[in-house]
Amino acid sequence: MDNKPSLHTSLSPALLDLYDVNSSIIVIIDVFRATSTIATALYNGAKCVIPVDSVSRCIELGNQIDCITAGERDGKVAEGLEYGNSPFEYSKEFIEGKTLVLTTTNGTRLLHMALEKGAGEIITGSFSNFSAVCDHLTEMNKNVILGCASWKDRVNMEDALFAGAVISKIGEHFSINCDSSHIAKVMYEKGKKDLFEFIKKNEASHYRRLIGFGLEKDIRYCLTSDKANVLPVYKDGKLMVKSFPGLTL
Amino acid sequence: MDNKPSLHTSLSPALLDLYDVNSSIIVIIDVFRATSTIATALYNGAKCVIPVDSVSRCIELGNQIDCITAGERDGKVAEGLEYGNSPFEYSKEFIEGKTLVLTTTNGTRLLHMALEKGAGEIITGSFSNFSAVCDHLTEMNKNVILGCASWKDRVNMEDALFAGAVISKIGEHFSINCDSSHIAKVMYEKGKKDLFEFIKKNEASHYRRLIGFGLEKDIRYCLTSDKANVLPVYKDGKLMVKSFPGLTL
Repeated sequence: MDNKPSLHTSLSPALLDLYDVNSSIIVIIDVFRATSTIATALYNGAKCVIPVDSVSRCIELGNQIDCITAGERDGKVAEGLEYGNSPFEYSKEFIEGKTLVLTTTNGTRLLHMALEKGAGEIITGSFSNFSAVCDHLTEMNKNVILGCASWKDRVNMEDALFAGAVISKIGEHFSINCDSSHIAKVMYEKGKKDLFEFIKKNEASHYRRLIGFGLEKDIRYCLTSDKANVLPVYKDGKLMVKSFPGLTL
Repeated sequence: MDNKPSLHTSLSPALLDLYDVNSSIIVIIDVFRATSTIATALYNGAKCVIPVDSVSRCIELGNQIDCITAGERDGKVAEGLEYGNSPFEYSKEFIEGKTLVLTTTNGTRLLHMALEKGAGEIITGSFSNFSAVCDHLTEMNKNVILGCASWKDRVNMEDALFAGAVISKIGEHFSINCDSSHIAKVMYEKGKKDLFEFIKKNEASHYRRLIGFGLEKDIRYCLTSDKANVLPVYKDGKLMVKSFPGLTL
């Protein structure tokens, strides 16, 4: 046995209990589109992102603090909220210096599950901040769980692809006895030349859903590496950039 | 929308609840080695296989009826039982005309879960009876769930590979809006030229476990198609070959 830290991939929130969340850094992965949007908003200067689990909680916070409220249900801005879940809504001009309160179905739920289970550290990952995630995990040298938000507990392709991309890049630094991780890596390496064409060809369910809403641009953005290369870390109810003043890790 | 029946892959028993078990044929998949052994024993003339969920229940049945009791825990024949979980133990000379009572950790548990949830029909699948499974599913033209037994709820590579093999062969007959199925298919098509080398190279956890017990021969057998091409169907507590006299479907 070597002394490398372990790395596991949880392909669905329903599988998270199988892993030792307590001793691990957990990476929340919701490629289409929550964690891509979170990285983008923070990269463009948002003060912080507050992920909440319901539209009502989002509206409530919107009445209490100075913030942007955002969230979608079924591809549309949820009733009572101002903005949606597209990274393109959060330009520097719009979001800099502001607090974004965001509700999403899957990503937020997984984040709160990880919190309840006492995760050692919670960060968010997406292709948008791929290198920042990889660099951080390598540097920390701790056990890792790549937590796919999936879709209402059903495994999805894009989150697994991101897990595979991380493993493909930094897997050698970890001890990996986890078939989910190996499967994710195999799939990523098969598709990496053109991730958009890969998920299109293999009929990923979210691809079909988002294309149905006319969101090809979002899909392409969310599959592109390092467009918003910051590391969102969760602390005291907020996601903030790792190096953000006032945040001590 | 077309009128094809649906096909879903449940990569772990912990995900089975996400699918409509009630209206579906569920294929129990436990490639290493329960469902390969079940197909082999039935192919070699076993009267039936009775899957039970504990060693004690296996011993109890062994005292009540004329049968072979078999099962393993951690790669060894479980204490109090006579035989193990290797397909090579069940030659025609040995098993013909006999009843095999088998306990396994993962496959049996999933089968009983499917039963409790009122599965429309339960069959078992493995590479050993690959064509029989594919032919049956095509012929029945009903909704299908490919149920991977996995390893204590952790997704495993070999069961997903078998699901992928089925989808690769007969997927066109079904409507598949299921990323787990697409992932399984992609992986199978990547590995199909030499499944043994594929799971070796990609460090499947069961490969490592079985190789550690000196069971390379079992691994190779369990990854070979149609060595025991019968269709085990579950009815009234027993797995019997589809065409076995006395079994009415």
